[in-house]
Amino acid sequence: MTVAQLIDSIHAPERAGSELVRRHLDSLTKPPGSLGALEDIALRLALIYGDPTPPLASRAIFLLAGDHGVTAQGVSAYPSQVTAEMCRNYARGGAAISAIARSVGARVITADLGVDADLSEVPGLVHAKVRRGTRDLSVEAAMTPGEMTTAMLAGAALVFDAEPLDLAGLGEMGIGNTTAASAITAALTGASVENVVGAGTGIDALGRARKTAAVRRALDRLAGAVDPLTVLAEVGGLEIAGLVGVALAGASIGRAVVTDGFIATAALLVAARLAPASRPYFFASHCSAEPGHRVLLDALGLEPIFRLGLRLGEGTGAALAFPVLDAAAAVLREMATFESAGVSGPTASAR
Amino acid sequence: MTVAQLIDSIHAPERAGSELVRRHLDSLTKPPGSLGALEDIALRLALIYGDPTPPLASRAIFLLAGDHGVTAQGVSAYPSQVTAEMCRNYARGGAAISAIARSVGARVITADLGVDADLSEVPGLVHAKVRRGTRDLSVEAAMTPGEMTTAMLAGAALVFDAEPLDLAGLGEMGIGNTTAASAITAALTGASVENVVGAGTGIDALGRARKTAAVRRALDRLAGAVDPLTVLAEVGGLEIAGLVGVALAGASIGRAVVTDGFIATAALLVAARLAPASRPYFFASHCSAEPGHRVLLDALGLEPIFRLGLRLGEGTGAALAFPVLDAAAAVLREMATFESAGVSGPTASAR
Repeated sequence: MTVAQLIDSIHAPERAGSELVRRHLDSLTKPPGSLGALEDIALRLALIYGDPTPPLASRAIFLLAGDHGVTAQGVSAYPSQVTAEMCRNYARGGAAISAIARSVGARVITADLGVDADLSEVPGLVHAKVRRGTRDLSVEAAMTPGEMTTAMLAGAALVFDAEPLDLAGLGEMGIGNTTAASAITAALTGASVENVVGAGTGIDALGRARKTAAVRRALDRLAGAVDPLTVLAEVGGLEIAGLVGVALAGASIGRAVVTDGFIATAALLVAARLAPASRPYFFASHCSAEPGHRVLLDALGLEPIFRLGLRLGEGTGAALAFPVLDAAAAVLREMATFESAGVSGPTASAR
Repeated sequence: MTVAQLIDSIHAPERAGSELVRRHLDSLTKPPGSLGALEDIALRLALIYGDPTPPLASRAIFLLAGDHGVTAQGVSAYPSQVTAEMCRNYARGGAAISAIARSVGARVITADLGVDADLSEVPGLVHAKVRRGTRDLSVEAAMTPGEMTTAMLAGAALVFDAEPLDLAGLGEMGIGNTTAASAITAALTGASVENVVGAGTGIDALGRARKTAAVRRALDRLAGAVDPLTVLAEVGGLEIAGLVGVALAGASIGRAVVTDGFIATAALLVAARLAPASRPYFFASHCSAEPGHRVLLDALGLEPIFRLGLRLGEGTGAALAFPVLDAAAAVLREMATFESAGVSGPTASAR
C-alpha cells in the first residue's frame, strides 16, 4: 500500500442519517440538548458506526516512540535516553498510560518507530524502527520523504494488524517532540512561534528560548511551505509520521480516532490536511497545558472533553476519554423515548 | 441517629500522609505534575482511602426525587407530573443515568423523598416519601424542620444501607428544583439572584422572570439568614435535603462523594457548611450550563473535571467522573517509579 492509496481508501461517514439521529436524540427522556457535548459525541458516533451504536469493546492506544536530533540544541528537560527507557517501562506496564489503559479496558500497542537505542530484545514492543532518531530539524530535514513514508505506513499497519478494533487512541513518546510539534503547528496554522512553544516536560526559560530559536530556524527553512508532507518530513518526527498513519488507517476502516495532547494532535492535523474525509472520524480528548494544543484543536474544529492540565502524552488523555465515548454511545443505544416511557413533554406555555 | 450525631461522626482524612503521597507521585515515571488535576485527585483519594488506593469497585449513584410547590409559579418548562413519570423510567432503566451508570459500572439507587404521586407500587424504588412535594418556597417555608430532618436522615440511611460502598455520586430529579437550588445558592453565597437563576430544563424568558421573582420573594423572607438548616428548610427541597444526608453519610463512612450539577452541588454546599470536616471527601464532576453551578463550585473550592455543557442532573455528570477517579487511583497504585523502572530524571542543566 502507498500513502496515496491509504488516503484514497478513506470515505467520510454518510451524513444522510444525521437528521434522523438528531430527532431520535430529541425523543429520548431528557430535555432536548441537556446532555450537551455528549449528544454531539453520540451523534458523531452514530454516523460512524451506525445507529444504534455498538459497544466500543475492542480498543487500543497506539503508543509510538521516536527520538529527535533537535535535542542536540538543548530543547528538552530530559535526556534522549529517556525515550528508550520509557519504552522498556511501557513493555513492563509501569507507565501512566499502562495504568490508565488497564483502567479503561484498552490495549496499549507500543511501537518503536525511531528510538535512538537498540530495543530489538525488548518483548512486547512492535519493532518498526525506521532509523535511530530524526536528523536535527533546526539544521536540516528531519526525515527524507522515504523515511517519512515508511514511518507513516508502519503506523497504518499497526491499525490493520490490530483488527478487530472498535476504537483507536493516539499516543506518543519522544524526548524533544514538542519542538517538532511546535514547528508543525506554526507551519500548518500560521500561528506565531511564541504562541506555540511551551514548557514541554518542564524546561526552564533559557531552554524555552533555545527551543523557540530552533523552531524559528526550521520555519525559515520551510519558507512558508504548507504542504503537509513537506512540513512533516522537514520538521516532524518518526513517531509523529507513524501517528499520521494510525489516524489515516483508523479513518479508512471507519473507526473513531481519539487524539491525545499537543504532539498527537499535530499528527492529527497533518492527517486531516492530507485527507479531509478523515476529519469526521477524529475526536479530541483534552486540552493540555501546551499553548499550541489549543491552536491545533481550533484548526481541526474539535472541542476537548477535559481540561485537566495534562501534559504527559503517551495517550493518557485519549484513554481517559474512552469512557465518555462509551457513555455517549450507551445513551443513544439504551435510553427510552418520551413515548415508550410514557413521560410528558414540555408544557405548551413553556415551549 | 440525629443530624447532630451524623455531623459529629464525620472526621476529615488525616493530612499527615500528604507529603509522602506527593513525593511518591513525583517519583513515578512521568515529569512531576504532568498529569495535572489527575494528580490532585490521586492525592486526595490516597488520603481518603489510604495509599495505595484500592479499586473503587462498589459504586452507586444516589438518585433522589421530590416535587416542588413553587412550580405553581410557572417556573419550569415541564409539568410536575414528569418527576413521577421519570421515577418509573428510572425503575425500568430507561433514563440517561440508567444508561450512563451501566456504562461505568455503577448501581443507581433511586429514592422517592417527596414525589407528588403515589409510587408505592413501583418496584426498584426506595420508598422514603416525607410528603407529596414541598410547600411553595416563594410563599412559605418549603419544609418544616421536622420534614427536613426526616429527609436528611432518609438520605443518610440510603448510604448506610448500600454498604459495602466505595464511591458515591449525587443525583436528583424534581421539576422546579433549579428554583430551590438558585435560592439556596444566593442565600449561602451572597451571589445576586440574577447570577444564579438559569434556564433549568429550558424555560423561556418570561418563565425565567417568574423564576427570578419567586427566588427574590424567598430571599426576602429569609432576610439574610445564612444558617444552613434554616436556608434548607425555607427554600430547599425534600430530595435536596436527602442529598445533604447522602453527602454527610458518605463522608462519615470515609468515602469519596462526587457531586453532579447545580442542584446536587447546592446540597453539597449545605453539607459542607454544616460539617466542614466533610469537605475533603467531596469531588466535583462537571460545570453545567446553569450559571449558579460555577458560583457553588467556587464556594466549595472544587474544580470540575468536565465542561460538557450538561444540564440534566440525575447524577449523569457524577457517573461520567467515576472512570476519571478510577484512572487517578490506578496511577497511584500501579505506576513504576523512576528508580524501579531504571528511567533517568531531568538533565542537570534543565533542573
